Amino acid sequence: MQIEIVNTGSELMLGRVANTHHQWLSRQLSDRGYTVALQTAVDDAADNIRNALREALSRADAVLTTGGLGPTSDDRTRDAAAALLDLSLHEDPDVVARIDQWFAARNRVAPPSTRLQALVPAGAILLHNHHGTAPGLLIEARPNPCRPDGLPAWLVLLPGPPRELRPMFLDQVLPWLERTFPVATPFVCHTLRSTGIGESQVEELIAEPLAPLTAAGLELGYCARPGEVDVRLSARGPGAERSVAQATETVLHAIGASVYGRDEETLETVVVRLLTAQGRTLTVAESCTGGLLAHRITNVPGASAVFLGGAVTYSNTLKMNLLGVQPSTLATHGAVSEATAREMAEGARTRFGADYAVALTGVAGPGGGTEAKPVGTVCIGLASSENTVVRCFLNQFDRETFKTVTTQQALEMLRREAMR
Amino acid sequence: MQIEIVNTGSELMLGRVANTHHQWLSRQLSDRGYTVALQTAVDDAADNIRNALREALSRADAVLTTGGLGPTSDDRTRDAAAALLDLSLHEDPDVVARIDQWFAARNRVAPPSTRLQALVPAGAILLHNHHGTAPGLLIEARPNPCRPDGLPAWLVLLPGPPRELRPMFLDQVLPWLERTFPVATPFVCHTLRSTGIGESQVEELIAEPLAPLTAAGLELGYCARPGEVDVRLSARGPGAERSVAQATETVLHAIGASVYGRDEETLETVVVRLLTAQGRTLTVAESCTGGLLAHRITNVPGASAVFLGGAVTYSNTLKMNLLGVQPSTLATHGAVSEATAREMAEGARTRFGADYAVALTGVAGPGGGTEAKPVGTVCIGLASSENTVVRCFLNQFDRETFKTVTTQQALEMLRREAMR
Repeated sequence: MQIEIVNTGSELMLGRVANTHHQWLSRQLSDRGYTVALQTAVDDAADNIRNALREALSRADAVLTTGGLGPTSDDRTRDAAAALLDLSLHEDPDVVARIDQWFAARNRVAPPSTRLQALVPAGAILLHNHHGTAPGLLIEARPNPCRPDGLPAWLVLLPGPPRELRPMFLDQVLPWLERTFPVATPFVCHTLRSTGIGESQVEELIAEPLAPLTAAGLELGYCARPGEVDVRLSARGPGAERSVAQATETVLHAIGASVYGRDEETLETVVVRLLTAQGRTLTVAESCTGGLLAHRITNVPGASAVFLGGAVTYSNTLKMNLLGVQPSTLATHGAVSEATAREMAEGARTRFGADYAVALTGVAGPGGGTEAKPVGTVCIGLASSENTVVRCFLNQFDRETFKTVTTQQALEMLRREAMR
Repeated sequence: MQIEIVNTGSELMLGRVANTHHQWLSRQLSDRGYTVALQTAVDDAADNIRNALREALSRADAVLTTGGLGPTSDDRTRDAAAALLDLSLHEDPDVVARIDQWFAARNRVAPPSTRLQALVPAGAILLHNHHGTAPGLLIEARPNPCRPDGLPAWLVLLPGPPRELRPMFLDQVLPWLERTFPVATPFVCHTLRSTGIGESQVEELIAEPLAPLTAAGLELGYCARPGEVDVRLSARGPGAERSVAQATETVLHAIGASVYGRDEETLETVVVRLLTAQGRTLTVAESCTGGLLAHRITNVPGASAVFLGGAVTYSNTLKMNLLGVQPSTLATHGAVSEATAREMAEGARTRFGADYAVALTGVAGPGGGTEAKPVGTVCIGLASSENTVVRCFLNQFDRETFKTVTTQQALEMLRREAMR
């Protein structure tokens, strides 16, 4: 079965935003054994959308589109699809009622333009939008005017905003797809997520032990992001499950200490889960990461069972007043030092009353570096009831990557401490 | 002149990485007045690459490809292009020498597989790679076997790693493009960024006043993200500059109070700039946003001139101990209340010694909602030396979107206060 994706949006073709839909949909589909054969992006011009749809429908069994279903003048996918397949549009009273309700729940009156979203091509199946007003549409082209042989194909029109598209895809499109086009051969794909080890080092350690399996059809992929490397193990066919299980064991044998999780797990999810299981609490004291560590931890639903809060002490005054760092320590060693990181961590733990405290102080850049402490220098302290450990790193990246990598190192220190 | 982009890579079709090349190349091209008519992505299979190239060359004047020029078994773009255009490959001694030098400079011997990268299709122009070993290739299809009329087209093969592709494109491809296909008509594109106003409301307020300009060729685009709506104004031709300037004035007249910035500006950048100019300082007290507000502010280089730091007070204990919120306030009104937000803001301002303090308390979800205070309820306090303002919102989104939208509202309250 062949799936194609057509992403519409002038903002894509002007390079104003990244095409996150392509990645997200491809990921969801490939994880379930479907193949995305081709992806196309076009601007909001009706002709370009129609041409892209025509070509996709001439090749694929199902074509997923994103965007162009909204109420504004540049939303042209619905019209383009109806014109291409020669379907009349009618206003659906149920959709009109849902749109009115959606606005009423927000104490607003639906602007007249929103009625456009209630236009439904004849024969289309509605995909309800629980997070917005534009419904998605499922249209069967039967016969398919885009193929000389008329073989039918499906067109799945999805809205552009991710928080509308994603639940609609997961809750409505995927069940339909798995019913209509069940995956014939088993496909298994596991991702092992590692941190604290480089991509080439990972490859050096696992490629050779995996060689017998890759020779027998196991696919091995790497994906390096700031502060982490994913190892992707996938196989297709009757022996897929066993092949991936063996490969997983081999990888864990080689680099298991650096593997923090699987598939969609984030390092912060793993840390919150470990601490929750142990009934331990956590606080943070952030300087150079400016709140990102607290943000990542509080992204995990249920984090409040573990995370009490903490301080963002950008200024030296706050380091002293909130955390009790000694003025002499700052004067002698500087704000970015092992000594300051230690006092920040211990101060936060005692003052905020947690089992663990993590403190981070460093030079995020682009300014503020010196010869002795260049941009990227960072010290991370981890205080527990037993002791305080401080580790220093040199993370020479742009400001945002620095923050990501540094919080990754802090979370990994926490994970290893909690695993002991 | 029509440009198409073909991105190759199985990691793209498996959804393992985002297609940053598409965005980056499109942005570079559109900023200089070129139009990217269509973008396609395919996996590393030779047949799929050849088909995508054939279709692109049947339509466009120039086709840019990314990826598939390296030394490994999944690098197939060079071969696919040569096969499609029926060009023989020969080993280029100059490229061989450059590859050997590249490895010698790193005290390594070039592995035999790297010789593949020295294979050059007959007639191709070499694009030297100063940051890696695979050269780019510029190939003219003349006559063009992919078009019935044989009209010529160019194929530009670029390497996959961004740090190789980007300088090669800027230093070698762009000058060639501007020489070969000079932009005949000027192109101007401005984006106005708004917050606190919905997409359909924006359109209702600006579409009619802009109608005379759009009728005369101005292009109007919208892009809605959580907590913000971009309005994109672009025009082509001799009057483009004036047309976009007039449109900008019209939009500012209609929704100017909600427009916080232009083009790449973020709300946090604008707030940090305003406060820096005024010499004012800022602190934050975050509950439900868990550090995201501090994180966004500290993403702005130079934020330390304005931002002292703050507290993430997830627990009630920390709200009392760190910010001085009264136990009676928490008992009477609850942690998510106007009264608590007010005390958090005033406590943070006084205790941390800043000109402004922003406090956020709410129910991020998915758990924790009640009938009186459902998930999404949030109160934002803004304290200054003059007074304290508290506004409450209902942000019914998933946890991460909630945090984004809520911090957006807090930053906008700050921006408007600082603009007074």
